[in-house]
Amino acid sequence: MKNYLAIQPEVQEAIASGKPVVALESTIISHGMPWPQNVETAIQVEETVRANGAIPATIAIFNGKCRVGLRTDQLSYFGQEKNVWKVSLRDMPYVLSQNLYGATTVAATMRIAAMAGINLFVTGGIGGVHRGAEHSMDISADLTEMGHTSVAVVSAGIKSILDIGLTLEYLETKGIPVVTIGQDELPGFYSNQSNFASPLRLDTPEQIAALLKTKWGMGLEGSVLIANPVPAHQQVPKDEIEVHIQQALEAADAQQIKGKNITPFLLKYIARHTQGESLQANIALIKNNAATGAKIAVAFAAKELEFPEEN
Amino acid sequence: MKNYLAIQPEVQEAIASGKPVVALESTIISHGMPWPQNVETAIQVEETVRANGAIPATIAIFNGKCRVGLRTDQLSYFGQEKNVWKVSLRDMPYVLSQNLYGATTVAATMRIAAMAGINLFVTGGIGGVHRGAEHSMDISADLTEMGHTSVAVVSAGIKSILDIGLTLEYLETKGIPVVTIGQDELPGFYSNQSNFASPLRLDTPEQIAALLKTKWGMGLEGSVLIANPVPAHQQVPKDEIEVHIQQALEAADAQQIKGKNITPFLLKYIARHTQGESLQANIALIKNNAATGAKIAVAFAAKELEFPEEN
Amino acid sequence: MKNYLAIQPEVQEAIASGKPVVALESTIISHGMPWPQNVETAIQVEETVRANGAIPATIAIFNGKCRVGLRTDQLSYFGQEKNVWKVSLRDMPYVLSQNLYGATTVAATMRIAAMAGINLFVTGGIGGVHRGAEHSMDISADLTEMGHTSVAVVSAGIKSILDIGLTLEYLETKGIPVVTIGQDELPGFYSNQSNFASPLRLDTPEQIAALLKTKWGMGLEGSVLIANPVPAHQQVPKDEIEVHIQQALEAADAQQIKGKNITPFLLKYIARHTQGESLQANIALIKNNAATGAKIAVAFAAKELEFPEEN
Ligand SMILES: [Mn+2]
Ligand SMILES: [Mn+2]
Ligand SMILES: [Mn+2]
Repeated sequence: MKNYLAIQPEVQEAIASGKPVVALESTIISHGMPWPQNVETAIQVEETVRANGAIPATIAIFNGKCRVGLRTDQLSYFGQEKNVWKVSLRDMPYVLSQNLYGATTVAATMRIAAMAGINLFVTGGIGGVHRGAEHSMDISADLTEMGHTSVAVVSAGIKSILDIGLTLEYLETKGIPVVTIGQDELPGFYSNQSNFASPLRLDTPEQIAALLKTKWGMGLEGSVLIANPVPAHQQVPKDEIEVHIQQALEAADAQQIKGKNITPFLLKYIARHTQGESLQANIALIKNNAATGAKIAVAFAAKELEFPEEN
Repeated sequence: MKNYLAIQPEVQEAIASGKPVVALESTIISHGMPWPQNVETAIQVEETVRANGAIPATIAIFNGKCRVGLRTDQLSYFGQEKNVWKVSLRDMPYVLSQNLYGATTVAATMRIAAMAGINLFVTGGIGGVHRGAEHSMDISADLTEMGHTSVAVVSAGIKSILDIGLTLEYLETKGIPVVTIGQDELPGFYSNQSNFASPLRLDTPEQIAALLKTKWGMGLEGSVLIANPVPAHQQVPKDEIEVHIQQALEAADAQQIKGKNITPFLLKYIARHTQGESLQANIALIKNNAATGAKIAVAFAAKELEFPEEN
Repeated sequence: MKNYLAIQPEVQEAIASGKPVVALESTIISHGMPWPQNVETAIQVEETVRANGAIPATIAIFNGKCRVGLRTDQLSYFGQEKNVWKVSLRDMPYVLSQNLYGATTVAATMRIAAMAGINLFVTGGIGGVHRGAEHSMDISADLTEMGHTSVAVVSAGIKSILDIGLTLEYLETKGIPVVTIGQDELPGFYSNQSNFASPLRLDTPEQIAALLKTKWGMGLEGSVLIANPVPAHQQVPKDEIEVHIQQALEAADAQQIKGKNITPFLLKYIARHTQGESLQANIALIKNNAATGAKIAVAFAAKELEFPEEN
C-alpha cells in the first residue's frame, strides 16, 4: 500500500500525533467549478479548515501515487489542466498504473483518506441515485464506498440533481446513518430545504463526534452522511433551482450526455443558466462545510484523548 | 467494542463454554405486537428455547450499551414503553450515543449477536424487498446485513406484506442460501404456502447445522435464511390473508405511512382486520421458530465438539 | 477452510512457487454446452492455457470438497452426468454438506480460486443484469462476488443475452474496473461489438498485469472484468445473433423458465436455432480467452518477482 501513497509531511505528522485532519476532494476543482473560482475556492476551503483548528489534506492522483495534501501550485494545476481524469473507485488502478493525472470523486477520496488514516472528509454534496435510476440503474459508486469505508462525509446533503428520496432509501438499505445538523429537514444542496425529513438530527459538533466515536468504536464499518444546511442567505431557493435542474436534465438527455460526464455537465449548465447564482451557493456551502467539518474533526480528536481505546 | 456490549452472565457463560445460545429480537416486542400479548409471547418464546435445550438471549439497547439477555422486567418495559426507538443498523450509533432505548430489528439484532459470539437468531419473518420496490427502492437493511454477518436466521419466511419473489432474487444476488425445513415450497409467513419454490430444502436440525458448519467453516461469510413453515392448523390461509394485506397496503398509501413505520402499521392493521387471527398465527409461528431454532443450536453445538477447528 | 478444499498436486506446487495459474469454471461444461463439444472444449482450453505458459485449474465440487484441478476423466464426468448441480455462491454449503456433484458458476469458481490462492480466472462471459431486471431484479451473484473477491475475470464481455448497459452501470456502482483489450468498444460475447464504449482500454497482457498489481497492491479488493473480443472471423455478427436472443427470451417467457435455469435454456436455444454457429463462436471465444488469460497470468507472475511485497 505504501508504494501507492504519498502523504505531505505536515499531514503525516498531524495524523501520527492524533491532530484533527480534514480530507478534501479534487473533482470539485477539476470538474465541478470553472477556473479561476475553482482554485480560489480550493484555497479558501483549506484556509477555512485551518482557521477552525484542523489540517486540510486535498487528495488527488499523479506520478503513480495517491497524494494526500497538495501544494498551491498543484491545486492550481488541477484547476486548469484539461487532461485530468475524473477518478472514481474503478478508475484508480488504471490511472495509477498508466501514470495519469486523476481528480478524485467522493468514493475515491474516501478510500485514499482511509488508506492514509484520515476519518473525516468535507465535500459539497454526495453522489447518489440518479433521477430515473429505477430504469437506468445509474447509481453512484459513492454509495457503495460509504457502505464499507469508515470515513465520515460532511456535505450540504445529496446533490439535488439526483433523486433524493431514492438515495435516502438506498442509504437506509446499506445501513448508512444520515444526520442533519441543526434542523429536522434534510438540506437540499443549493437550498437548505429538500422536502425530506432527515433520518437523524444532531445539533453540535460534539454530538456528531460522539456518534462517530460510537459507530466505529463498536466495529460498525462505513460512513456517516453529515448534512450541513447551506446558510439561508446564501442558498438558491428550492423551487427556483428545481426549474433549472429540470432544464439541465432535458439538455443532458437531448445531447446524450452519459455516465461520468452527467454530473459535471449538469452543474455547469445550471451555473450558466442561473448567471452564476448556483456557483455562488456552491462556493458558500463548501466553505460552510469546511468550517463545520473542521469543528467535528477537532471534537473527534479531543474525544480520542478522553476515551483511549481499551485492549 | 467491549465498551458498547453488556452480556448477561448466564448468556456469557453459555457462549464461553460453547453451549447452544439463541438470539432473539426486541422490535417484535415493542413495534410488532400489542401489549400484553407481546410480553407474554416474549416470555413464552424464551421458555420454548430453554425447553428445547438452548439459552435465550433477547437483544435490545439501553443505557448506552447493546444488551444481550434481558430480564423479565426489561422485556416488560420494552413491551409497554412508547418512546422506544425501532433500531436498524443505521440507528445504532445514534441511539447508543444519545442514550436512548432501542428495540432492535433483524439487522441490528444480527450484528449485536455476532459481536457477542452468537451465530443463531430466531425471529418471525425477515424484512426484504417491499412491494413496489422496483420504483420506490424500499429494501430492508436486513438483506444487506444478511449478506455479510455470519448469523443464521430462523424464520417463517419473508414477511408476506413484502414482495417475496423480488426478495428471493435479491437474496440470490447477494449469495445468501435460503433453505426450507421439511417442504419444497417456501412458506409465506402467516401461511405455510407462498407459491414460490424454496431454493433449497433440508429436513432435520442436524442437516441444517451441517450446512451452517460447512458455510462458515469454509470462510463463506453471511447469513442463511432458514424458513420454518408455520404449523398448518395455526396458519391463516394464503388467499385469506392476502386480501387483508392488500387493504393494509392501500390504507398505508392513503395515510402516507412511510419508511420504518410501514411494517408496524401493516402488521397492526392486519391484526385488527382479522380480529386477531393474524396475531395468533404470528404468536404460533414465532414459538414454532423458537423450538426449531433451539434444536438447530443444539445440533450445531454438538457438531462443534465433534469436529474441532483445525489450525 | 482446508477441510473443504482439495488442490491437485501440480496446481498446488505452481501456486506455492508463484508460477502462473489460470482457474477455469465447470458450469460451462455441465450446463453451457452439449456433449461431446463441452468435454472436447474443456480439454482444449486446458491445453491452450498450457501452450501459453500457465497451469490450468478447472474447478468443481464433489465428495464434500471444492476441487481445484480436474483429471480428464473428471472433466468427462461433468460433461455427461445429468445430476450435476449448477452451483452459485449460495449453493456451495448445501452441495458440499449434502455430498452432491456441483459445477461452479463464475461466482463460485472465483471464490474457490481465491481460497486456493489463484487470482486469475478465464470464462466465456460473465453473468450480470438480466434484460427486464428493472422489474424482475434478476441480477447474477457473479456481480456481487466480483465486488469483493480479488480474482480477475478474463471474458469475451458480458453474456449478450443480458442487458449490457444495465450491467455496466451496476459494475460502476460496485467500483469494478472494466477493461477491454485492444479496442475502444466493449465486445458483445458472440460478437466483438456491443454498441457500448468500454470504460477502460489496455492493449497488452503486461499493461493488464500492471493494473491488477496496482489494484490489489493498494488494497482495493475485488475483481477486474477483462473483456477480450472474439476474433472477427469467428464471431456471430451482433445484429444476426440479436434476432435469436429475442426469440430465445420469448420462448423462455412462454415456457416460464426461471431462476438458475434461464441462462442454460437461452444458450441451448440459440445454439439450436443458429445451427450451431453460436456454439462455434462460444468455443472460439473461450479458447481465445484461455490464451489471453494465460499470457496475463504469465505477465503477472513475472511482475511478482520484479516487485516483491514490502512489509
Ligand atoms: Mn453513474
Ligand atoms: Mn425501508
Ligand atoms: Mn438470477
